[in-house]
Amino acid sequence: MKILITSGGTTEAIDAVRGITNHSTGKLGKKIAETFLNQGHQVTLITSKEALKPQPQPLLNLNIVTCVADLQDALKKNVPNHDVLIHAMAVSDYTPVYMTDLDELRQVSDLDQLLDKSNSEKKITSQADCQVLFLRKTPKLISQVKQWHPEIRLIGFKLLVNVSKETLIRVARDSLVQNKSDLIVANDLNQITKDQHKAFLVGPDFLYEANSKKDIAQLIYKEVTKHD
Amino acid sequence: MKILITSGGTTEAIDAVRGITNHSTGKLGKKIAETFLNQGHQVTLITSKEALKPQPQPLLNLNIVTCVADLQDALKKNVPNHDVLIHAMAVSDYTPVYMTDLDELRQVSDLDQLLDKSNSEKKITSQADCQVLFLRKTPKLISQVKQWHPEIRLIGFKLLVNVSKETLIRVARDSLVQNKSDLIVANDLNQITKDQHKAFLVGPDFLYEANSKKDIAQLIYKEVTKHD
Repeated sequence: MKILITSGGTTEAIDAVRGITNHSTGKLGKKIAETFLNQGHQVTLITSKEALKPQPQPLLNLNIVTCVADLQDALKKNVPNHDVLIHAMAVSDYTPVYMTDLDELRQVSDLDQLLDKSNSEKKITSQADCQVLFLRKTPKLISQVKQWHPEIRLIGFKLLVNVSKETLIRVARDSLVQNKSDLIVANDLNQITKDQHKAFLVGPDFLYEANSKKDIAQLIYKEVTKHD
Repeated sequence: MKILITSGGTTEAIDAVRGITNHSTGKLGKKIAETFLNQGHQVTLITSKEALKPQPQPLLNLNIVTCVADLQDALKKNVPNHDVLIHAMAVSDYTPVYMTDLDELRQVSDLDQLLDKSNSEKKITSQADCQVLFLRKTPKLISQVKQWHPEIRLIGFKLLVNVSKETLIRVARDSLVQNKSDLIVANDLNQITKDQHKAFLVGPDFLYEANSKKDIAQLIYKEVTKHD
């Protein structure tokens, strides 16, 4: 099978020297990639420069991206010729549009004007005590995947922080329907430590529980290959 | 001599999953550290998790920091017992205070109220098309160094983007006076590529020009050790 995996986190530039990063080590994506590679499957891994990656090997194709726009291009190109997408990347929900200070904010009569602005300096400097950064929602890529390839098997991830098991599972079920996914891996940042990675794998008619990255990778592998 | 070096870039958290990072590979700090280590000097390197670092070795002390507050603690602790500080880290000028949306921004009568707020959610979620992030200036650490140790030799860095040689040198001279530094390395992001790193080393009575990270490290080494 041809498996497409995303891992790591995207970074949206504020200017030439600063960016907003969604933190993700890439460890889980690496583990999942290795699980498929070890069984002889072809893997395309779309990931960030900083993320952990499997060793280079003939069956592995690496595709390095930085921001959501890069990721969108990479997905559009790769989704149509893969059988499965495992979308583990931490994708920025918002991207910077314009940075200003309180003085300009106080003077403007219509806030929407600021959203049409952009900063001309490559490195935004300011003497002001406060800065104000306007951000705009990024396109929700996971919801577009099935338009690019209706038959692809889609596995999504939901990361929440400090919520109940019930909330995790409910949010996963919602995402399953909303994004036409085949499986959602729901996890809580507070349940992820060096040696543990609790997660619920939620499908239309199943619910698995995992305690480690290895568990998650093996459960995904089993689910994806069960009809082969 | 006991040399204190900072390298890499700081990250200021927006919430549990996102942060604003000042990009820096740590390559230059690594090169400078190695230059001193190879000559038998003791080096304390304060750096970020992601930055490139020299191989572990007896003369090298590593101190990993994330944000400006961490860096301030590490500097306060280490500056008093070192002879030289080479402050190459890309330090965040501003840190996030409060994230909201346009609706709240439109309704608030006094913007300063928002600066007293903070987000209670660990992962800030929003359905809004736009987010607005308020940031506050971080303390300028380099200007405090000589208060913590008046005799320390202080080497600062100025990174600008797409400016003239004259501007680079002028800004370096200003920083030299303002921060009571002994040497400022001024560089332009547009003049830094994989194989090249142009910089001006500006002192009270000298001006050197460097073309590579190796040049910069050697010129700093020469300047720091010239009176020994």
